[in-house]
Amino acid sequence: MDVIAREVILARRPANRQDFGGFEIVERAVPSVRAGHVLVESTALSIDPSMIPRLTADTYAPKFAIGDVIESRAVGRVIETADERLSVGDWVLHSGGWRDRAVVDAATASLIEPTDAVPPETWLGVLGAPGLTAFVGLAVAEFTSDDVLWVSGAAGAVGSAVVQLAKSRGAGTVIGSAGGADKCRYLTDVVGVDAAIDYRAGDLASAVRSATDGLDVYFDNIGGSHLEAALATMNVGGRIVSCGMIETYGTRGPAAPRNLTEIITRRLSMTGMLVTDHLEMRAAFLAEAVPLVESGRLASETTRFSGLESVADGFASLLSGDGKLGKTVIDLT
Amino acid sequence: MDVIAREVILARRPANRQDFGGFEIVERAVPSVRAGHVLVESTALSIDPSMIPRLTADTYAPKFAIGDVIESRAVGRVIETADERLSVGDWVLHSGGWRDRAVVDAATASLIEPTDAVPPETWLGVLGAPGLTAFVGLAVAEFTSDDVLWVSGAAGAVGSAVVQLAKSRGAGTVIGSAGGADKCRYLTDVVGVDAAIDYRAGDLASAVRSATDGLDVYFDNIGGSHLEAALATMNVGGRIVSCGMIETYGTRGPAAPRNLTEIITRRLSMTGMLVTDHLEMRAAFLAEAVPLVESGRLASETTRFSGLESVADGFASLLSGDGKLGKTVIDLT
Repeated sequence: MDVIAREVILARRPANRQDFGGFEIVERAVPSVRAGHVLVESTALSIDPSMIPRLTADTYAPKFAIGDVIESRAVGRVIETADERLSVGDWVLHSGGWRDRAVVDAATASLIEPTDAVPPETWLGVLGAPGLTAFVGLAVAEFTSDDVLWVSGAAGAVGSAVVQLAKSRGAGTVIGSAGGADKCRYLTDVVGVDAAIDYRAGDLASAVRSATDGLDVYFDNIGGSHLEAALATMNVGGRIVSCGMIETYGTRGPAAPRNLTEIITRRLSMTGMLVTDHLEMRAAFLAEAVPLVESGRLASETTRFSGLESVADGFASLLSGDGKLGKTVIDLT
Repeated sequence: MDVIAREVILARRPANRQDFGGFEIVERAVPSVRAGHVLVESTALSIDPSMIPRLTADTYAPKFAIGDVIESRAVGRVIETADERLSVGDWVLHSGGWRDRAVVDAATASLIEPTDAVPPETWLGVLGAPGLTAFVGLAVAEFTSDDVLWVSGAAGAVGSAVVQLAKSRGAGTVIGSAGGADKCRYLTDVVGVDAAIDYRAGDLASAVRSATDGLDVYFDNIGGSHLEAALATMNVGGRIVSCGMIETYGTRGPAAPRNLTEIITRRLSMTGMLVTDHLEMRAAFLAEAVPLVESGRLASETTRFSGLESVADGFASLLSGDGKLGKTVIDLT
């Protein structure tokens, strides 16, 4: 008897960044589990800002194809195995996409060992791609603990990891920004920023200037108005690592920042990064991050959307930032 | 009897990038020539795109102050000396600003040795700051002869030097862009680009794509629409050196480029530079450039505006690009 998977496919490309109604849920028989493969029942799927330009096709990166299942990272348990490295019942991090059951190459699935304190979806967040992204971004920026750092989107999965990694390394001044008083309280009380900035509460550049005499490093998760404020407050020779520009995903202007000439006058560097270029850093990342997670110094929140039907709500939350803390997942439990 | 200098001061800050009527010519007695100083009669003054944001105050760099003489590089002959390193009749490159006679610190004046083939204003152009800027920019971009290079503003003082330095080092593919058929002919016939692009003749990104499979290095003198076209045509891992953004000087939007997210998806780096940070490279630059100038492989044009009264026309020419080739100077001979 066929095993059936429910999957989310892209039926129609979004017309704009408010339009995420083009998903369709279909049922398909999963393929047979060939040698070297395992069948996984996923409990949580990743929903990620970087998916937005791949949906809207406003990117140089590979677009999601119409009719295809949405590619994503996921965690789940092995329910059938044809590979000696993985047993039934094992928890794995895999790239099976937005479906409840997936056959995946065992070589591409990573065995994880959740505990009560460190649940499976942690590997989609602070111990997964977002955490590694934070680690890589700090390396790309050549961050040292002497640098004054601003992290935008600091209540998100990547941003909160950046702040905590930097502070655990002894950073003097780390500023985090987010939208709304609740998130700023979270930044101060849990994430541990030295100054929290609510970007909805007033002029961003003025707030950065009030918090510091100038930035050495800006970790950009937002782009647009936030990048403009950073350009206006960087020290000469400052470094910007461009990790995300969610403010401009799915748009084609008007294009902030309006002050890009500051790149010249302040002799800044701005470097784009994709975590997938740096997977060789994963071991070094885990060596630093796992003890921090276990000791509670690298905290992580998960915002859950329930069921495959909730993906449009998930994207709306990512784009508005409302009510979202840490890593956003689709919960299938 | 006092020696009188005519000088250009900034009487009023420009209201916008079309407004360069705020200059005033005044006559002042030059100060007495103290020990260690020389009095120079200047024959040519530099007029430079990077002055525009300093005039409009749209920069982090030191603004020109109201009532002050405009700071600039100049060349001229020593007519009075109180320093043993310089004699009456010597030609010097100095920073005496926009005036016909200037008392300058001999330690900051460089002795130059013009010939019939290499006239004094060459030290304001290809052997001066623009040439050194080209040299430094290629170093900042870590340019090698394997890189496919696009230089915008390639008919200008900096751009034409970038192209010629790159080609003399054996570069395979160097694209140059400029405005109009005459300049493009100059790029092909004199500067020696492999492909000339007239940015007024059609879509810039399409033209770059026709000339190459992708850019490794973009040397930006223009910003705005040109930077947008570069972002759309760079290879993964490409490097942008931000030297000038004349298209956006004196404006505050609308802000091209609209596709800054390409920084992330193509993993680009963008680095701003000011030549004044790298004056230690001058000796290495001259060692490379002087033989090239003498052998005619580093050609340079000079666009002359006659007299101190012509500065507004000079800026209009810089901003429009019309009729301008190579280095723009105010000729006082």
